[in-house]
Amino acid sequence: MRLPNLGVCVEPLTPAIAIPDLAVLGLPSDEPLLLCPGTPFKYSPVHDHVWARIAKGLRPESGKRGWARIAGRWRGGSSGRLVFFRSGNDSMDTALKVSQIGESLGYPITCVGVPKTVDNDLPHTDCCPGFGSVAKYIAVSTREAGLDVASMARTSTKVFVLEVMGRHAGWIAAAGGLAGRKPHEPPHIILFPEVPFEKEKFLAKVKQCVNDYGFCVIVVSEGSATADGKFLADAGTTDAFGHTQLGGVGPLVANMVREAHGYKYHWAVADYLQRAARHIASKVDVDQAYAVGKAAVDLAVKGVNAVMPTIVRKASKPYKWTIGHVPLGEVANKEKKLPPEYITADGFGITDACRRYLEPLIGGEAYPPYKDGLPEYVRIKGVAVRRKLKTEFKI
Amino acid sequence: MRLPNLGVCVEPLTPAIAIPDLAVLGLPSDEPLLLCPGTPFKYSPVHDHVWARIAKGLRPESGKRGWARIAGRWRGGSSGRLVFFRSGNDSMDTALKVSQIGESLGYPITCVGVPKTVDNDLPHTDCCPGFGSVAKYIAVSTREAGLDVASMARTSTKVFVLEVMGRHAGWIAAAGGLAGRKPHEPPHIILFPEVPFEKEKFLAKVKQCVNDYGFCVIVVSEGSATADGKFLADAGTTDAFGHTQLGGVGPLVANMVREAHGYKYHWAVADYLQRAARHIASKVDVDQAYAVGKAAVDLAVKGVNAVMPTIVRKASKPYKWTIGHVPLGEVANKEKKLPPEYITADGFGITDACRRYLEPLIGGEAYPPYKDGLPEYVRIKGVAVRRKLKTEFKI
Repeated sequence: MRLPNLGVCVEPLTPAIAIPDLAVLGLPSDEPLLLCPGTPFKYSPVHDHVWARIAKGLRPESGKRGWARIAGRWRGGSSGRLVFFRSGNDSMDTALKVSQIGESLGYPITCVGVPKTVDNDLPHTDCCPGFGSVAKYIAVSTREAGLDVASMARTSTKVFVLEVMGRHAGWIAAAGGLAGRKPHEPPHIILFPEVPFEKEKFLAKVKQCVNDYGFCVIVVSEGSATADGKFLADAGTTDAFGHTQLGGVGPLVANMVREAHGYKYHWAVADYLQRAARHIASKVDVDQAYAVGKAAVDLAVKGVNAVMPTIVRKASKPYKWTIGHVPLGEVANKEKKLPPEYITADGFGITDACRRYLEPLIGGEAYPPYKDGLPEYVRIKGVAVRRKLKTEFKI
Repeated sequence: MRLPNLGVCVEPLTPAIAIPDLAVLGLPSDEPLLLCPGTPFKYSPVHDHVWARIAKGLRPESGKRGWARIAGRWRGGSSGRLVFFRSGNDSMDTALKVSQIGESLGYPITCVGVPKTVDNDLPHTDCCPGFGSVAKYIAVSTREAGLDVASMARTSTKVFVLEVMGRHAGWIAAAGGLAGRKPHEPPHIILFPEVPFEKEKFLAKVKQCVNDYGFCVIVVSEGSATADGKFLADAGTTDAFGHTQLGGVGPLVANMVREAHGYKYHWAVADYLQRAARHIASKVDVDQAYAVGKAAVDLAVKGVNAVMPTIVRKASKPYKWTIGHVPLGEVANKEKKLPPEYITADGFGITDACRRYLEPLIGGEAYPPYKDGLPEYVRIKGVAVRRKLKTEFKI
C-alpha cells in the first residue's frame, strides 16, 4: 500500500470516513476495517477531526461509558482493525487507550501508533518522521541568514535571532547547530529548553561573539525558560517603547540584546514555515516516513495490537537504519529530551556527539515536483469506496 | 569574466581591494581599474564596507570637498573605470554621484550601476535580480503554511499571518498571492504598503474568510501603514540610511484579529530568511543576475558612464527577456510601486495582470550543491593580484 506523499492536503470528505477496499490489504472483503491514513505532516483535516472526536470520547474522565460509546460504534462486525496514523506524545496516549478497548470491553481491535512529530521527542525510536525535514530547514535557514548577517555586520545588523519550535525539547534548536562547524560560523548561540536561561551569562556571550567574530547569530527554542520553569515568552513584558510584547521569544531575546548592548538586530520567527517546508525535506526523513507507515499497516494486518513501529539506528556514518516496534505503553506520554552529552559545557552549543546523531537525519534532498514555479502537493481525491460495514457507522 | 555565484560569502580581504588582471577584460595592463564585485545577495562584506565609506564621502552635505577627496584617491592613472555592483535605490543614487565625479572634477571615470534589490522597486527594468527568488520563497512558504493551517482549522489554528519584507512597495507581499488561484486557496488577504490599512474593513474580511473557508491566511508587508502614512509597526530604530527600522507587524496584526474575533492564531516573520534563501532560488532570477552583471562589465569596459543595465520583457508566456540599459539619473532614488491595476478592487488581493507579471519571475528551480545535507555556498578566496596602480591606493 502506497502511503500519501508528505506534503499532502486533504479536502474535507463526504462521507467523513472512507473505507478502503480490503483486498488491497490482503483481507477478506467483509472484514471490518477502519483506516486513518493521516499523513506525517498533518495535512489530513478530515481525519484529524474524526480522531479528535474519538479522542474526546476516550478521555479518562469520560470513563467506561465513553469507551463503550466508541466501541459501540465499531460493533459492525466480528473484529476490527485500526491503523492509527498520527503521533506525538498525546496521540500515542490516545492510541494506547484505543488499543485497550478490545481488552476492556471484549471488542477485538488492533491499534498501531505511528511516530510522527517534528518535536522528535518520542522515546524508543531513533527519530520521528517529520523531524529530519524540519531539522534540515532550520540548519539551511540558519546557514543562509548567517551569511546575510556576516555580509553586513561591519556597518549594519550585528545580531540575528531565529526562533524555532520546541516547547519542551530542544531537538529543532539543536539542528540549527548543524549550520556551522567552526566557532566563528553561525549559529554562535543556541538557547535550549533543557538549559535554564541566565540573562547575564547570555548577554556576556553575545558581546563576546560580536567582539570576536563581528556578529552573533542566535537560535532560540520557543520553550526557552528560566530556572524556575517560566517560559521567557510568557514573561508578559513590554518592549523598549512600552508596547505590550506580542509574544515570541525571538523578538524578546533580540530586544534584550539591544537594551544591554545597543547592537542593531533582526529577528525571524519561522513558526509553521519550518514544519510545512516540504520543498526542503530531508530524503532520509521522507524515506523513514514511508517506512514507518508501511510497517504500521503490516503490523495491523498481522493483528499486532498496541505497538508503535520504530526507527532503529544501525550505524551513523554512513547512516543505516531498520524498522522495529515497541509497545505503545512504553511511548505514551513520555518525552525524550536532549541528553546532557549533546549540549556543550557552556550550554550554548551542540557537541560532536549531537552532530553525529543529527547529521544523518538531514541527509539527501527530496524535491517535490514543480509547476509554474511552485511545488505541486498531492491532494487526496477522497473518493469513498463501497461501504463494507453491515450497520450504520457515524462519528 | 565569471561573476560570483548568488549565495556567495566573502571573508574580509587583505588588502581590502583586489584588482583583477585587466587582460581578462581586454584592457591594457596599465589601465587603472577598480572592480567592485559585490553580489546580488549582498554577501560581500568587504566591498559593502568599502562602498559604505565611499558613499559617506559622497553625501551631499560633504559637498565638493568630499568629492574631491574621493577623486583624489583615484588619481592613480590617466583614467579610471569603475563597476558599481550594488543597487537598491540608495545605491543607485550613490552610483550616480560617483559617475558625476569625472564630469565635475575632470577625472575620467566610468560608473555602472547594477540592479539588485529584493524590493523590486527600481524603475525601467522588468524586475530586479534578487526579487524573483524572494518571490518564489514567499509564494512557496505561503502555499506550504496554508496547507498546514487548512489541516487544523476545524479544531485549532484558524488564522495565520506571514510578515514579509517591503517597506514602501508591495512586490514581495504580492508574490505571496501566487500561492493560490481560487478564492478559498491561501492567501486570503494581502496587506500592501500601497493600500492604506483600514482596521474595521480588514477585520470584517478576516471574519468572512473564516466563515466561508474555515480559515484565513494573511500576508502582510512590513510597510503596511494607515492613511496618514504611519507604519503599523515602527520599531523606533533607523538603518544606515536613516530609514525607520520596521518589524513586528505580523504579531501586531495577529493580535488585532484575536482581540476582535478570538480566533486562535499563529504568525511567522520571515525576515532575512526570505532574502537569503538561495536553496529555493528562482532559476529565472539567477540567470538574470548573471546577465545584468555581465552587461555591467561590458558597459564599463566600453566606457559607457552613468548607466544601469535593465531587464527588458519581450513576452510573458513563455517568458522572454533581453538586456538593455538606462541612464542612472532615471533610476536614482525613484521607487517603483505596485500599480493600481495589480491590486484587486477590495485592496486585499492581486489581479490577473499582476499574476501574469509575477509568475515568470519565479520560474524554474536552481538548486545549489549539497554536502552532508546542507547547501555549500561559494566563498570567494580573495586572492589579491599584482597591483596595477602607479601610486598608493587606500580606502
